[in-house]
Amino acid sequence: MEEQHIASAFDRDLERVQAQIMKMGGLVEEAIRLSAKSLETRDEPLAEQVRAGDRAIDLLEEQINEQAARVIALRAPTAVDLRVILSVIKISANLERIGDYAKNMAKRTSVLATMPPVNDSAGAIRRMARLCEEMLKDALDAYIRRDAELAAEVIARDEDLDQMYNALFREFLTFMLEDPRNITACMHLHFIAKNVERMGDHCTSMAEQVVYLVTGNTPDEARPKADQTSLNTKV
Amino acid sequence: MEEQHIASAFDRDLERVQAQIMKMGGLVEEAIRLSAKSLETRDEPLAEQVRAGDRAIDLLEEQINEQAARVIALRAPTAVDLRVILSVIKISANLERIGDYAKNMAKRTSVLATMPPVNDSAGAIRRMARLCEEMLKDALDAYIRRDAELAAEVIARDEDLDQMYNALFREFLTFMLEDPRNITACMHLHFIAKNVERMGDHCTSMAEQVVYLVTGNTPDEARPKADQTSLNTKV
Repeated sequence: MEEQHIASAFDRDLERVQAQIMKMGGLVEEAIRLSAKSLETRDEPLAEQVRAGDRAIDLLEEQINEQAARVIALRAPTAVDLRVILSVIKISANLERIGDYAKNMAKRTSVLATMPPVNDSAGAIRRMARLCEEMLKDALDAYIRRDAELAAEVIARDEDLDQMYNALFREFLTFMLEDPRNITACMHLHFIAKNVERMGDHCTSMAEQVVYLVTGNTPDEARPKADQTSLNTKV
Repeated sequence: MEEQHIASAFDRDLERVQAQIMKMGGLVEEAIRLSAKSLETRDEPLAEQVRAGDRAIDLLEEQINEQAARVIALRAPTAVDLRVILSVIKISANLERIGDYAKNMAKRTSVLATMPPVNDSAGAIRRMARLCEEMLKDALDAYIRRDAELAAEVIARDEDLDQMYNALFREFLTFMLEDPRNITACMHLHFIAKNVERMGDHCTSMAEQVVYLVTGNTPDEARPKADQTSLNTKV
């Protein structure tokens, strides 16, 4: 009877801190979206809004860490319960880094607004950012619903993001060769693309957390995207 | 007087759990090295040894999590102390993933040993793995010594690893085009190279932890490696 009582207290605590995770996740998703938008529309006030909004994201992470530490101190969770509360800490750390990258993207937007646009690069980055935003949303959904299948699917999408980054990088090279006046802008755009790629890595880390939580096993090794060639045929 | 006493108890606890981190780090470094060696020398017993050794790495992570949770429960750390003990949890999670990737590399070694070698790909992967092993060693040193400069330098090296991965990927394409009988082996080698690249990402995450611990600030945005062209000249 008493064990039941203790479990309920832990479950309530967990619900509260998971609600904070989802709140933090929502702020970070918005930061990614607005940051990419401000880049494409060359909207400096919007970029400034993203930069200012990072403070709230950092504060939430601190809060979540303190809440989680209190839960550990008060409920002394073990085994699965301990793993769950530790996952809260790790996921909020990933969210905080993603938020940072969004803020840094916004910083570069202001610089880029002083230069002529380079082809449709800002649009390409916005498409990358949208894919990343979807990965984040799905990773968080997978976490709240303990959905290992959705989490595995997010992990697979990281390869798409990496390929978009590689393609953008090659595009930048051609723009720079075409016209040296593009070089400075392309350098900034390359930084931004690299940031989005790293955001995707953190979404992948979050999804890996979910798979581990649900199955007790770490996800399969990192799988590169399947090639067009028939890879399974032993010729 | 009493506050001093509590701080010392926390410091002792911290030392103990950090010693476990360094022990875990040593096992993981060895796993990377032996895994790459077994691939290059086609040494199946050695690959089996790596696979079996992963259990000890996983057990250490569980131990470290429990120790860290006990420290939180007993000492109720706040502010900087809390951040430090949480970093222990995050770093051990990164180490565990790296160990997993090394184990998965070893699994594929056995499969590859049944196929003719592909050019010097195993050697190229061994070079990638060595760079990764050095990143890991330096990330751990940076952590123990709270050396933010060394940590920043590890973060910068991740770009080299990514470029080695890209170059290998392009090589595999040429080998597969050259001779379709290479396709299956190249697929496995590609998986392995992707694993090493992901290991590097986790080393980077560890180094980012160190920068945050030391400076209180998250590291600068992700910086792509400087191009050969003069990027800073606004033409």
